[in-house]
Amino acid sequence: MSLWLQLEQAGAGRQRSLDEVLAAIPWNADGLIAAIAQQHDSGEVLMLAWMNRTALEETLRSGRVCYWSRSRRALWRKGESGGHVQRLLVAHLDCDGDALLLQVEQQGPACHTGRRSCFYNRLEDDRLTVASSPP
Amino acid sequence: MSLWLQLEQAGAGRQRSLDEVLAAIPWNADGLIAAIAQQHDSGEVLMLAWMNRTALEETLRSGRVCYWSRSRRALWRKGESGGHVQRLLVAHLDCDGDALLLQVEQQGPACHTGRRSCFYNRLEDDRLTVASSPP
Repeated sequence: MSLWLQLEQAGAGRQRSLDEVLAAIPWNADGLIAAIAQQHDSGEVLMLAWMNRTALEETLRSGRVCYWSRSRRALWRKGESGGHVQRLLVAHLDCDGDALLLQVEQQGPACHTGRRSCFYNRLEDDRLTVASSPP
Repeated sequence: MSLWLQLEQAGAGRQRSLDEVLAAIPWNADGLIAAIAQQHDSGEVLMLAWMNRTALEETLRSGRVCYWSRSRRALWRKGESGGHVQRLLVAHLDCDGDALLLQVEQQGPACHTGRRSCFYNRLEDDRLTVASSPP
């Protein structure tokens, strides 16, 4: 039985080693897992990005969020250029181990457009409406 | 200039037709986009799943969330078997058009394990800890 099936039936408090978990994650064809960043106190969903195993290990070890940039094909330490760091408070994996939810303290905007969140394009009533202006 | 670059610079209130948006979404190699479901009032992130164009159009039209099940390779009308429907309040696309945030009213649990959220596996201190028991 896979680790994920075992954990489905496990009660609160059951534990596994990080090594076992990292080996069981069903990384996609590019070796990545989707990661959602959520501001820990307001609950605002800030962005969706991707991590490879190295990025996830660094994030958990350092407490600063590191993604994998699919466009640059490189580790992407969030905020390393503009200072808009994401400090990790807690990370959760989902039931089948193929998505991460990161609760973070976001310094400044999360979005490269300068908006707080990347999710500013509202879909409603058969059209898209930009919900917030860039600064 | 791509639609997404135009919208990056657009002020609040700028609009585009849904047809134009659906044609511009950078669907992945399987024709899918990632969709995050968030309980609209509590802010709890419930799950991450996938949609193809048909699923997204149906969701926006009907107001009930329909995903694409990658394992069953079929449309997955959330709750159609167990009644745990997700009613859509509002959907947002992110800055590069490759992720959706769905604010929903979730009836009952979102997770197939019976837990409210799929994100019950906490990663902390070099281990995974199950954060909530199945019902």
